[in-house]
Amino acid sequence: MAKEKIIRTLAKDTVRKIGEKVKLQGWADTIRDHGKITFIDLRDRSAIVQCVGSKLPKITKESVVEIIGKVVNRPEKLVNKDLSTGTVEIKIDSLKVLSPAKEIPLPLDGDGLEIEESVRLKYRYLDLRRGRMNKNLRLRSKTTQFIRNWLTARDFVEIETPILTKTTPEGARDFIVPSRLQPGKFYALPQSPQQYKQLLMVAGFERYFQIARCFRDEDPRADRAYGEFTQLDLEMSFVKQEEILFLTEKLFTELVKEIFPHKKITKSPWPRISHKDAMKKYGVDKPDLRKNKKDKDELAFAWIVDFPLFVKQTKDDFFHGAGAKYAPSHHMFTAPHPDDIGLLDKAPMKVRGLQHDMVLNGHEVGGGSIRIHQPKIQNKIFELIGFTEKQKKQFEHMLTAFSYGVPPHGGIAPGIDRLLMVILGEPSLREVMAFPMTAGGSTAVMDAPSNPAKEQLKELGIKISKK
Amino acid sequence: MAKEKIIRTLAKDTVRKIGEKVKLQGWADTIRDHGKITFIDLRDRSAIVQCVGSKLPKITKESVVEIIGKVVNRPEKLVNKDLSTGTVEIKIDSLKVLSPAKEIPLPLDGDGLEIEESVRLKYRYLDLRRGRMNKNLRLRSKTTQFIRNWLTARDFVEIETPILTKTTPEGARDFIVPSRLQPGKFYALPQSPQQYKQLLMVAGFERYFQIARCFRDEDPRADRAYGEFTQLDLEMSFVKQEEILFLTEKLFTELVKEIFPHKKITKSPWPRISHKDAMKKYGVDKPDLRKNKKDKDELAFAWIVDFPLFVKQTKDDFFHGAGAKYAPSHHMFTAPHPDDIGLLDKAPMKVRGLQHDMVLNGHEVGGGSIRIHQPKIQNKIFELIGFTEKQKKQFEHMLTAFSYGVPPHGGIAPGIDRLLMVILGEPSLREVMAFPMTAGGSTAVMDAPSNPAKEQLKELGIKISKK
Repeated sequence: MAKEKIIRTLAKDTVRKIGEKVKLQGWADTIRDHGKITFIDLRDRSAIVQCVGSKLPKITKESVVEIIGKVVNRPEKLVNKDLSTGTVEIKIDSLKVLSPAKEIPLPLDGDGLEIEESVRLKYRYLDLRRGRMNKNLRLRSKTTQFIRNWLTARDFVEIETPILTKTTPEGARDFIVPSRLQPGKFYALPQSPQQYKQLLMVAGFERYFQIARCFRDEDPRADRAYGEFTQLDLEMSFVKQEEILFLTEKLFTELVKEIFPHKKITKSPWPRISHKDAMKKYGVDKPDLRKNKKDKDELAFAWIVDFPLFVKQTKDDFFHGAGAKYAPSHHMFTAPHPDDIGLLDKAPMKVRGLQHDMVLNGHEVGGGSIRIHQPKIQNKIFELIGFTEKQKKQFEHMLTAFSYGVPPHGGIAPGIDRLLMVILGEPSLREVMAFPMTAGGSTAVMDAPSNPAKEQLKELGIKISKK
Repeated sequence: MAKEKIIRTLAKDTVRKIGEKVKLQGWADTIRDHGKITFIDLRDRSAIVQCVGSKLPKITKESVVEIIGKVVNRPEKLVNKDLSTGTVEIKIDSLKVLSPAKEIPLPLDGDGLEIEESVRLKYRYLDLRRGRMNKNLRLRSKTTQFIRNWLTARDFVEIETPILTKTTPEGARDFIVPSRLQPGKFYALPQSPQQYKQLLMVAGFERYFQIARCFRDEDPRADRAYGEFTQLDLEMSFVKQEEILFLTEKLFTELVKEIFPHKKITKSPWPRISHKDAMKKYGVDKPDLRKNKKDKDELAFAWIVDFPLFVKQTKDDFFHGAGAKYAPSHHMFTAPHPDDIGLLDKAPMKVRGLQHDMVLNGHEVGGGSIRIHQPKIQNKIFELIGFTEKQKKQFEHMLTAFSYGVPPHGGIAPGIDRLLMVILGEPSLREVMAFPMTAGGSTAVMDAPSNPAKEQLKELGIKISKK
């Protein structure tokens, strides 16, 4: 008998193919062997569909199979309302195992949060088969796509900036990369594209964004991933702070409506609270303004403004000016409030900065500011931080750039991981990342970091120190 | 007199505001001082518009200015057909310098290709004001956005994979990053997300893509950037090679039509040429099939298929199996042609791989393959490359993953920089990148790589070797 050529049908489409012969390819989600007949729930990217047959080859759960069979309606009383394909089943003509599965080392039903995380990360490629994780990553893709379309429709240009760049004392610890072509020297991975986005304003793009990877060698917390994270990096020229807040608020309000339609935003427009009032009323600068903290679908956004420009500098600040009193409360490019310029000399701790923090359900999900665009004021800030001439020199390119016509500019950088974690009500950032690192800095699945080959170190001109 | 509040108008919109008072903000593109009256061409992100006034404050070229004035029609004979706003001009009421510009250190009119590249890269933020560079980056943003929308409309999910990952002997030299939390160990920056995308197929996503940053410490060529580059990384499950070629061809054909409408594709469907025929007929595996090589708007795409699976291994291969005879001609995950499996033992050099190269105007702009999904065959390939047991162990996670139900899968990875370079007819990749590195591995604008602080090295447990 000549084999008929049947093209693949997705599980979700079977409901529209009653009476037809279909080919399905996917994973054996569950197998119920009733002796004479066997039920296999076949899962593909679109849905799960029940298949039924007899005298099937022995298969194991999670094996990859190809099933050819006929789509039939289920009897009324056997309809499964929990499945999108619950009205049909497939009468199996033939079943082929494309790739057998050994016993799966962790349960894949349920949300998986009770499983030891190291096991979930070691087998992340299995953990991602979990419905919740699959959904989270799909929503993440939809979220970044929505943001990109929304911004490009408003004249923003997405521009990629370098990952191999310069080490600068910007507030956190850098990851550094030894250079082979210039032995003894190192690149740094960017803590954010902060300087590049400001340079793009000097270049005249006026409206820039990037879904950008950022790197910080900081100890992790529940809402801070170790190593790398992703932010929507956004910058605009010729704007007042008000316009940045308005645009950002509109973007995320429309995003929630479109991608998370069952979520309710507590208050629109978002409340704006001065840093002083937030500290007085709530004791924190990222208050949780939900009306009902048990409501998983409530999103309470807020803006915190009028931050002090400086905080006291501590040894943990990586400004290397640790002798000086003042550390930027946001970062050293944030503009002082124009009404407070006079206080820079007399009472720096009283100067407000044009900083804005975006807060959601008690988490800081984004921060930004109007930037300094006058070289003189930038220099003044460097001095208050306590930069030596040598340290200032590290930012000379910024001051030089600002001498060739720089527009007033500002921006914001909401964290994509953190925002999604809060919107989805997940307990950790790692629940919205495909292959996150452990708290100890090991990469999921891969055995990284690992020992380098001797030749690699030799080429780079570096040695590992003896302990 | 109370100041009236006028909101900003973009230069391009002035043509629709005849008789109105407008506020413009932008750069003084050219200044022609005729004594009694002065002409200023103001440039913003949208266009250039001529402004004219008298008794203006002294300004310099490329300063950032704010002009308030009335839009008037130009007399018929003074219409400038080269400008989109050439029918109007602005009668200046007031002009304010927002940020003065010193003398610009490189000419910004013209394509800039005659200028010493180190100067262009040092002042990249000025070089990007150049019409050509500005246009290139805008087209790049449009290109990636088109690709993303096209793929997400077809069920693809964009998933971000780690930048801090494992060093693996994959064919080129890795950049490595010392770990502070695990001193003496190193992360590697990914040469591509190859392993992650295959793991995402094991995870059941079936259709993945990412506009991904890749890192290779390889000496640069005109069509290979030093350090980092960007590729469209794409992978599909349950596909034959034919389906990957068909999808990719459709994507880029529609992309050219939409984003580069004045470009003409020489032949559709794209010619498919076996590696053997290409070498015989053209002497290269990336033939230039343009009918007229002087036509700047001709795009001759082609597919090269049926590559040999192996090439002779050389000392330049970073497979660390340098004693063995065989190096993968594409990479070690490429599936052998099913008809040639029997030859793996007898005559490895005769085995064809299910590899496909995407060629455009004589450049390889993308490569991909159907992957091996049988652990046994993968092991066989590792042996032919000459991996020791220790080297094999570096890929144990892949073989383990493949034992839990892996779908047949394959993909492709077109280079975004190279594709744009060829489509736009640019002489170098750096003409389509915002802040590229020099051939010597120095980052544009920033002084990177640079000397690390002693404390940084101490924390990381590494030392710079004496020469």
